[in-house]
Amino acid sequence: MSSEILLARVRTVLVDTSHPGNIGAAARALHTMGLTRLVLVRPRQYPHPDATARASGASVVLDGAKVVDSLPAALDDAVCTIAFTSRPREFAGRVLSVRDAAHEAMRCAAAGDVALVFGNEMSGLSNDELAHCGIVATIPANATYASLNVASAVQIAAYETRVAAQGDAVWQAPRFAPASADEIEGLYRHAERTLVAMRFLSPAMPRRLLPRLRRLFARTALEKEEVNILRGILARVDELLGRDPGTQREDVARRPP
Amino acid sequence: MSSEILLARVRTVLVDTSHPGNIGAAARALHTMGLTRLVLVRPRQYPHPDATARASGASVVLDGAKVVDSLPAALDDAVCTIAFTSRPREFAGRVLSVRDAAHEAMRCAAAGDVALVFGNEMSGLSNDELAHCGIVATIPANATYASLNVASAVQIAAYETRVAAQGDAVWQAPRFAPASADEIEGLYRHAERTLVAMRFLSPAMPRRLLPRLRRLFARTALEKEEVNILRGILARVDELLGRDPGTQREDVARRPP
Repeated sequence: MSSEILLARVRTVLVDTSHPGNIGAAARALHTMGLTRLVLVRPRQYPHPDATARASGASVVLDGAKVVDSLPAALDDAVCTIAFTSRPREFAGRVLSVRDAAHEAMRCAAAGDVALVFGNEMSGLSNDELAHCGIVATIPANATYASLNVASAVQIAAYETRVAAQGDAVWQAPRFAPASADEIEGLYRHAERTLVAMRFLSPAMPRRLLPRLRRLFARTALEKEEVNILRGILARVDELLGRDPGTQREDVARRPP
Repeated sequence: MSSEILLARVRTVLVDTSHPGNIGAAARALHTMGLTRLVLVRPRQYPHPDATARASGASVVLDGAKVVDSLPAALDDAVCTIAFTSRPREFAGRVLSVRDAAHEAMRCAAAGDVALVFGNEMSGLSNDELAHCGIVATIPANATYASLNVASAVQIAAYETRVAAQGDAVWQAPRFAPASADEIEGLYRHAERTLVAMRFLSPAMPRRLLPRLRRLFARTALEKEEVNILRGILARVDELLGRDPGTQREDVARRPP
């Protein structure tokens, strides 16, 4: 089953939300992670201009939000119901970190709908509301200040759900052509000659200069173009020292034995 | 080195932030994850009542924020500088997911300070600002709407940094005494007798009823108290059927061979 289908089965349920701005921010958080479904249980004020403003470009999620008057109505046919709370509860049963809960959510999504449930800004979910859900999830946090904003908690849950579904591969900058071993050796030979000519390197007492330079450039995984730039700088130093730069370039065609 | 010391070495840098509310929300996000240091580069409005309001209980981070007038001043002695951007850039160099970047940050924190850098709400970080940082980090997101609110991005980065430092172990509800194997077998024997007496189970045609019940309760990892509750219900059924409940209890003391 594709990760898009799995993510499409996730609904986020906000219970008794006080501030409409948080509803909009939660809609935006969901949209950034490719989640689409929002259910509002007894929102104090909705629709509201603050919700629209904080949703920013995520009106598709906000406008599609469903309003219901009870938590069971919001959960209805979900086969996996996950209640988020930071507060330890004696009767919580199965308690998972948000990361483990997200993996469980994606496992269950193969079989049906999943609900992620978040409580009111001041009091969170009640014990009774928690008891309607099969799993309790909690976000690792500062023990002395675990009070995440509700939309921030939705953001982390949505992020972990997306990563559970699709992994965390991200865009990469384009790779330019890597330098070959002989191009890199040509650079080191050129550098050695020029550093000797500059009298920065003494052939009689080389110390660790060349190994240090090799170590530094080895970490960079030099590209062809970068070798050309560095040899261009060396050739310019050669010119300024009055050496014939032509003689420094012959080894470009030379190969290691 | 303790995870507290590592986290104390992380500073979060907000560049050219337009909305003071986002500065307050970022301070709250950091505080929830146990991060303490906030640096503001040319904030448009700061201090501001919106920043204070959105910081909620996190005034300790907001009040300690340092304001500087350039990104290099904000990075100064950091040994690891991580720029956050959602937009692919040609010259980005080393690009990590936020999760990998958080692990790298904690690895580097053993050697010195770490900076997490976030750009302006509309335009993010410029290419020039990005070039001041050693690592580019990006948060996996919806390709068609990757526009996280800046405080939401800070929340995810702070969360991943905390999890990289301390793992994601969370509170667990108290464990009650588990039932022993013989207590569980006593329950199944009792259930079998009662179900036969109820004529719900036919000894001649038992079908898969008892194995299904065993499978169900095996998944629950029964507690002692739960076995007592279930046997109490069975005993009440026995009473209603007119059987002497005393005869059903003798096997409690029986042990499997």
